[in-house]
Amino acid sequence: MIRISIDAMGGDHGPNVTIPALAKVAERRGDVRFLVYGREEQVRPALAKFDKLASVTEFHHCEVAVRMDDKPSQALRQGRWKSSMWKAIEAVKSGEADVCISAGNTGALMAMSKFCLRTMATIERPAIAAIWPTVRGESIVLDVGATIGADAHQLVDFSILGAAMARALLETDRPTVGLLNVGVEEIKGQEEVKDAGRILRETNLKSMDYRGFVEGDDIGKGTVDVVVTEGFAGNIALKTAEGTARQIGEYLKSAMSRTLMAKIGYVFAKGAFDLLREKMDVRKSNGGVFLGLNGIVVKSHGGTDAEGFMAAVELGYDMVRNRLIEKIKSDLDQFHARLPQVARPLPAADDNI
Amino acid sequence: MIRISIDAMGGDHGPNVTIPALAKVAERRGDVRFLVYGREEQVRPALAKFDKLASVTEFHHCEVAVRMDDKPSQALRQGRWKSSMWKAIEAVKSGEADVCISAGNTGALMAMSKFCLRTMATIERPAIAAIWPTVRGESIVLDVGATIGADAHQLVDFSILGAAMARALLETDRPTVGLLNVGVEEIKGQEEVKDAGRILRETNLKSMDYRGFVEGDDIGKGTVDVVVTEGFAGNIALKTAEGTARQIGEYLKSAMSRTLMAKIGYVFAKGAFDLLREKMDVRKSNGGVFLGLNGIVVKSHGGTDAEGFMAAVELGYDMVRNRLIEKIKSDLDQFHARLPQVARPLPAADDNI
Repeated sequence: MIRISIDAMGGDHGPNVTIPALAKVAERRGDVRFLVYGREEQVRPALAKFDKLASVTEFHHCEVAVRMDDKPSQALRQGRWKSSMWKAIEAVKSGEADVCISAGNTGALMAMSKFCLRTMATIERPAIAAIWPTVRGESIVLDVGATIGADAHQLVDFSILGAAMARALLETDRPTVGLLNVGVEEIKGQEEVKDAGRILRETNLKSMDYRGFVEGDDIGKGTVDVVVTEGFAGNIALKTAEGTARQIGEYLKSAMSRTLMAKIGYVFAKGAFDLLREKMDVRKSNGGVFLGLNGIVVKSHGGTDAEGFMAAVELGYDMVRNRLIEKIKSDLDQFHARLPQVARPLPAADDNI
Repeated sequence: MIRISIDAMGGDHGPNVTIPALAKVAERRGDVRFLVYGREEQVRPALAKFDKLASVTEFHHCEVAVRMDDKPSQALRQGRWKSSMWKAIEAVKSGEADVCISAGNTGALMAMSKFCLRTMATIERPAIAAIWPTVRGESIVLDVGATIGADAHQLVDFSILGAAMARALLETDRPTVGLLNVGVEEIKGQEEVKDAGRILRETNLKSMDYRGFVEGDDIGKGTVDVVVTEGFAGNIALKTAEGTARQIGEYLKSAMSRTLMAKIGYVFAKGAFDLLREKMDVRKSNGGVFLGLNGIVVKSHGGTDAEGFMAAVELGYDMVRNRLIEKIKSDLDQFHARLPQVARPLPAADDNI
């Protein structure tokens, strides 16, 4: 049985999107149970429409709903202990749920998740991992916004977390991992990235196949299964890719409606365009996963529809079924067992410069 | 008369690409003169094919050609004073040329440009500016790889440099400027970015309209004319956008060849696809501009063809004609005249936190 806690109030559309999404998951999965948190007068009527869902759901009324524009500090002050967001996270902490899903605002969700679940013993700071569609399938990119300016050890932590997630989600036993950098030449890039690369090379973990540095254009190529960077560059990469995809979509739309010939061509090729649209559909890879905490929290895009929220719920389901947390723990243990034997102290008093 | 110095040996194809590109520019522009540097036995035969070009070109033999995979330190050691790359840059320093163009390797070109031209009096570190096609036209994005981890004052410098370039290239007197960040909320982002924003807001320069923070997806939207960031994030944004465009191109190609209907549609809509291809043609916006040095150097993409190299040469031509260096100097003067009146010392001993 997989138990999922839901912040029903999160996102731009609240229960109007979250509840129908859960109904779909309940239809598809026989082994799922939901703990749903939200305002009674909004959630109950939505729930009442779906018999199957209602039969696998335990609902809890929460007076407070964190707003999409609340600042994290504000959300913590007003929503701690009592908001639907907090309660959904807390269900993971107490062991009542295996994973928490919210489409609420990222800053508030991260602040509450850190406060409630705390980071794992050896992890200093959490990361947000995104699933990135590539020409070869899917890759995991982290951190996309939780940790600005990670040091070498944090980048190594992110590599371990991302590799564990890849083993849980992609069909691979030893995922390939690359550190995002501005060039593959040894002289380029940040010191932190170089030091992280050295540690990963020297520890040579069983849980990942470290492949060195990758550049921005390697993400879409699917050069590696896991792309690791700090949150500033990672967030900018993610948003820039989204922007570029939208930009090309607009070019394409305007080109296809410009002449009669183009319009006729569009009619013939409609199936192909539909396929393309599906490939570019961001809803299907919806969900940023918070890694490094004592429990899994999935952030769905705030503006998503039921289809997109369902994808985020399914993502949470898959990670529980594939035992992500256990994988992370054993990978971290393996790493810390090897670290003292190979890694020199940081910052590197490098003898080969 | 606009005098352009050319490193004819730079790029993957050397004179086979650079010389035909110059021939096209010579046909189009009556007021251009070239100083061409390279190996005699390779450049002379290429030059001899183009009468018009030969009549406006002064050729200088250089024994050394910097290789595409030379490290910057290696290039400086072996190529300083004597390589075609060095000589082309030196022509700008001596005043024989107004701008230098090279498709040679970026690290070497930047190292030599810094060494030879030096940064402008008040500028600590140079930036590489890229011209980014957007749905609204073109924007300038800098730094895309010269300066890793810029501080607030360097980000302000980049804003001034980028705004001057926008005034030289785009048809605007007061370009809009945004600082790339991971969110528009005040609490997010790096301290350097916040401090830079404060300085730009408080100096309120005539040369630019500072609009605050922008995110990765704002670049392709053309939200502002000039997007400013440090070189690590900027390079990753640029490469990620290139990768995403290539990825979608592959999706489109495969979708259009999958069924007979799609193929028929493609035939009808071919004009539209050609238009789209032209829109996405990276050659047309080829050229990273080195800003902040005592002279203009344009880096063309190493793998480009004659069309792309021509775009880089034309870019250099436009910047000279529109007096980029004079604009930068007067903008910097204006900024330094205003700075003492508004800016508090850095790092900010902030009284409002």
